[in-house]
Amino acid sequence: MIINKDDIEQFEQRYRTAFINSLAGFRQAVLVGTKSIVGDSNLAIFSSLTHLGANPPLFGLINRPDSVQRDTLQNILETKEYTLNYIRSAQHEKAHQTSARYDKGVSEFEKVGLEELYYPFCKAPFVKDAVVRIAMKLEEIIPITINGTILIVGSIAQVVMDDEMIEDDGFIDLSKKDVIISQGLDAYFISKPIGRLPYAKP
Amino acid sequence: MIINKDDIEQFEQRYRTAFINSLAGFRQAVLVGTKSIVGDSNLAIFSSLTHLGANPPLFGLINRPDSVQRDTLQNILETKEYTLNYIRSAQHEKAHQTSARYDKGVSEFEKVGLEELYYPFCKAPFVKDAVVRIAMKLEEIIPITINGTILIVGSIAQVVMDDEMIEDDGFIDLSKKDVIISQGLDAYFISKPIGRLPYAKP
Repeated sequence: MIINKDDIEQFEQRYRTAFINSLAGFRQAVLVGTKSIVGDSNLAIFSSLTHLGANPPLFGLINRPDSVQRDTLQNILETKEYTLNYIRSAQHEKAHQTSARYDKGVSEFEKVGLEELYYPFCKAPFVKDAVVRIAMKLEEIIPITINGTILIVGSIAQVVMDDEMIEDDGFIDLSKKDVIISQGLDAYFISKPIGRLPYAKP
Repeated sequence: MIINKDDIEQFEQRYRTAFINSLAGFRQAVLVGTKSIVGDSNLAIFSSLTHLGANPPLFGLINRPDSVQRDTLQNILETKEYTLNYIRSAQHEKAHQTSARYDKGVSEFEKVGLEELYYPFCKAPFVKDAVVRIAMKLEEIIPITINGTILIVGSIAQVVMDDEMIEDDGFIDLSKKDVIISQGLDAYFISKPIGRLPYAKP
């Protein structure tokens, strides 16, 4: 079937949100940990993590300022620090629960039952049970004016994970650890490897 | 183990590329179809598709102008049209092969053995064997000056897929069709569903 732009505009709002979000496909589910300037911890699930470059190592996150993610954005702007945490499938319900609209000042860590972890190199909280923990430093905020979203550009400051996850050529085996994948607003998956392929030549 | 920014800078270049690309996690593998102003078809695999918003429906793609993806960018700038195509696991080798540095004017469709498909509403080529085909219209090019990449912002013009893939609430079941997921530069996966969760409330 062919669905046109006009059809999409006519969709009931929640139907359209589910349709377009799930149409964007599979993505890394990441828990973003932050701390406000007055010391409140925050944890929020994002599915918009994007690789921007390896040298310097830069990742992007898309943020809608009026969403439940607004506390995360404010904390990042205040402290310039945030953490990225990948979790196992067994924790996917706790990860999803961070998307609830808790009041500012309420810690999602406490509410969903995930333990905080701190390292001396970062003021923002990490998820103790995460398989991969990344300390990020805010580099730039880029407005996407067409729909009022913003691109948060950050550089990787530290990465914490088990040595055994890193293969000889630098590839990180997330599949082996059952790291969760998301699709749309509420669907979760684990990965089943097909394989790695050699560098493609004409 | 803790890996610092300085360690990452010291990594051998290919090792660093594999490390940082795979660290960004799982993502949707998408074949981007374009046509040059003189009529040459182009097909390139991207792993940077990002959901920017549902109303209006907007997706982003990150492009590094000096990469093998430069033909795609040039064609999008020339024609303002492009297609997004999701494929099944059985086609993952063909999809990967589009990342080879073919000369400009050479059609990756022909070289990798994927058939083109056209609809009257779009000049850019679709992948015939794709499970989901999306016609996109260029809306905006946003420079990410910190590393010379750009964010291509496009709106969804048409979506073509089987009716049966769309669930009652608008969610699109890509998992059922073995749509491929990528990680890093060369690893491919299919999804194994954990489940969908209800809207989270405090």
